[in-house]
Amino acid sequence: MAGVRSGHTEEIRKSRARPHAKAWGGIDLGGTKIEAVVADAEGRPLGHSRHPTPADGKPEEVVREMHAALVEAMGSAGLSAHRLVGVGVGAPGSVDMKAGTLARVSNVGRGWTEPYPLARDLSALAHSRVVLGNDVQVAVAAEFRLGAGRPYRSVLGVWWGTGVGGGLILDGVPWLGRGAAGEVGHMVVKPDGAQCGCGRRGCLEAYAGRANMEREARKAANDGEKTKLFGWMKKKDRSRLTSSVWMKALEEGDALATHLIDRALRMMGVGLASAINLTDVDAVILGGGLGTRLGPKYAERLFHAMHPHIFIPERQPPVCVAALGELSGAIGAALLVESR
Amino acid sequence: MAGVRSGHTEEIRKSRARPHAKAWGGIDLGGTKIEAVVADAEGRPLGHSRHPTPADGKPEEVVREMHAALVEAMGSAGLSAHRLVGVGVGAPGSVDMKAGTLARVSNVGRGWTEPYPLARDLSALAHSRVVLGNDVQVAVAAEFRLGAGRPYRSVLGVWWGTGVGGGLILDGVPWLGRGAAGEVGHMVVKPDGAQCGCGRRGCLEAYAGRANMEREARKAANDGEKTKLFGWMKKKDRSRLTSSVWMKALEEGDALATHLIDRALRMMGVGLASAINLTDVDAVILGGGLGTRLGPKYAERLFHAMHPHIFIPERQPPVCVAALGELSGAIGAALLVESR
Repeated sequence: MAGVRSGHTEEIRKSRARPHAKAWGGIDLGGTKIEAVVADAEGRPLGHSRHPTPADGKPEEVVREMHAALVEAMGSAGLSAHRLVGVGVGAPGSVDMKAGTLARVSNVGRGWTEPYPLARDLSALAHSRVVLGNDVQVAVAAEFRLGAGRPYRSVLGVWWGTGVGGGLILDGVPWLGRGAAGEVGHMVVKPDGAQCGCGRRGCLEAYAGRANMEREARKAANDGEKTKLFGWMKKKDRSRLTSSVWMKALEEGDALATHLIDRALRMMGVGLASAINLTDVDAVILGGGLGTRLGPKYAERLFHAMHPHIFIPERQPPVCVAALGELSGAIGAALLVESR
Repeated sequence: MAGVRSGHTEEIRKSRARPHAKAWGGIDLGGTKIEAVVADAEGRPLGHSRHPTPADGKPEEVVREMHAALVEAMGSAGLSAHRLVGVGVGAPGSVDMKAGTLARVSNVGRGWTEPYPLARDLSALAHSRVVLGNDVQVAVAAEFRLGAGRPYRSVLGVWWGTGVGGGLILDGVPWLGRGAAGEVGHMVVKPDGAQCGCGRRGCLEAYAGRANMEREARKAANDGEKTKLFGWMKKKDRSRLTSSVWMKALEEGDALATHLIDRALRMMGVGLASAINLTDVDAVILGGGLGTRLGPKYAERLFHAMHPHIFIPERQPPVCVAALGELSGAIGAALLVESR
């Protein structure tokens, strides 16, 4: 159970399943790792495992690895022979919940474009029904029910990591629109602005997404700007500027890292204030790799960055840091089953 | 019944109230005029009147004029002795629906800041219960139920006039947030951009609101730029650049008017695409004085202005022009009573 934060490890130990209790599986499918949990009816984790996502794997291999992670999570919960009520999966790309397919996945395994019947294949391996959902939307739902969103009825979740994802919960219910609601990262914060990975310009993600910030940082470093970002990256034995590398650079006062994060916060302020002026929800939940790593101090900075653009400033909603850590996606996936 | 569009006049004539049928009152309180309707249970207008808003009037005078308009609308419906089920009011400013008060009104009568008990005072005059709502939100609700929004479950209404207002209907229900949702006009479309009437910078309304466009036009004209905008204004005996003046200028190819409307459309494209990427609703309804006056041709231009910024371009929602004309606000106000 490496990587589980101490709070969760403890909770997992305390709440070991009674042998005949029902359990729900939840899998968070990411580009680098697969997180699996087995949870009780309230979404409390009973067991957990983490497997690396097969690099360059075909969809079939990815599904086999998801199943292996699930089996290990069940074992860690003492539920090896237990039949799950169902398994939820939070996935990136284009999820068709009804069809149980996943399409347009760019950064999982070798990636694929056409709809792949992930629910059917995983269901055959796990002997359990499988429900798909969007990775960020399920993580936001988990935070709403069990984490930082508990005091509120309506929240905007902002998942700040490689990209900038989001999810809306309105009056207690996830608002999915026609399936793709919550794309805060592709709200336009500057017309004809910076190039975004999505092919458009001026999206919030173009300024705040970790992938886009890394591209900017590499360009600046190649142009001779001084930064220790890539030195720390190598020291940490990473090939990418991970959230911990950014955090280290900020702590050490690296000028380039500080500049890029300041710019990201400024643009997050613009985009999220616009989202609040439109939806008028009770709170913003800040999650994702970078969001949770930067933590309360940066959540407060984000609050202040939003402030000048909030239409009713005396009623600006708070910005809260996600509380479930790296398990929010897997727990949210498990909750997905129950809610259908 | 001056100003009622022919379609409505006809409908009003056809659907004269049966003497004992129930009826609902609806009043749209605007800066220049008060529109009142008496409607049946489905919101179909049975009678209508329009009174000018008392210029520089105290709140008490505004309420008396609202009552006079309502009485006239009842008379035109042949309902002089009829007791209304209730009266709905759509108002600008800060509406407290529970308390029945209206505060922070800048452009009605002499304007006022503190909460004024409008529902209580109008109720005493009309011998009927009175329900308040936001003017744009009720107009959008009317279009959703009876107008351009009928084919859809979820819409974003954009009321393009003196300002740029908006309203969300999600899965058939108005989404009000904490009471102030739908402020599309104060989504930020350009950081540190043009000055907005709200005191902030770069709001959509700063580029597209008629009041802000007029200010820009005056500045340009004073700086020597050639335009016939103000000539047409005088010819039409107006003191403001009304929607019909803008329309005339566009039809005649006035360069300044064309430039300002083009810029407004470009910025509307940015802001509304961001709103769609966040909410993923089925359709955009374009209403308001300028929106309905410019009509389908400009709705199509708005669609194209949004297109480059839409996250799932193959599924971009249509932009439909509001269908109830100038009565949408009053009809929506009447529907407000029924829905409570």
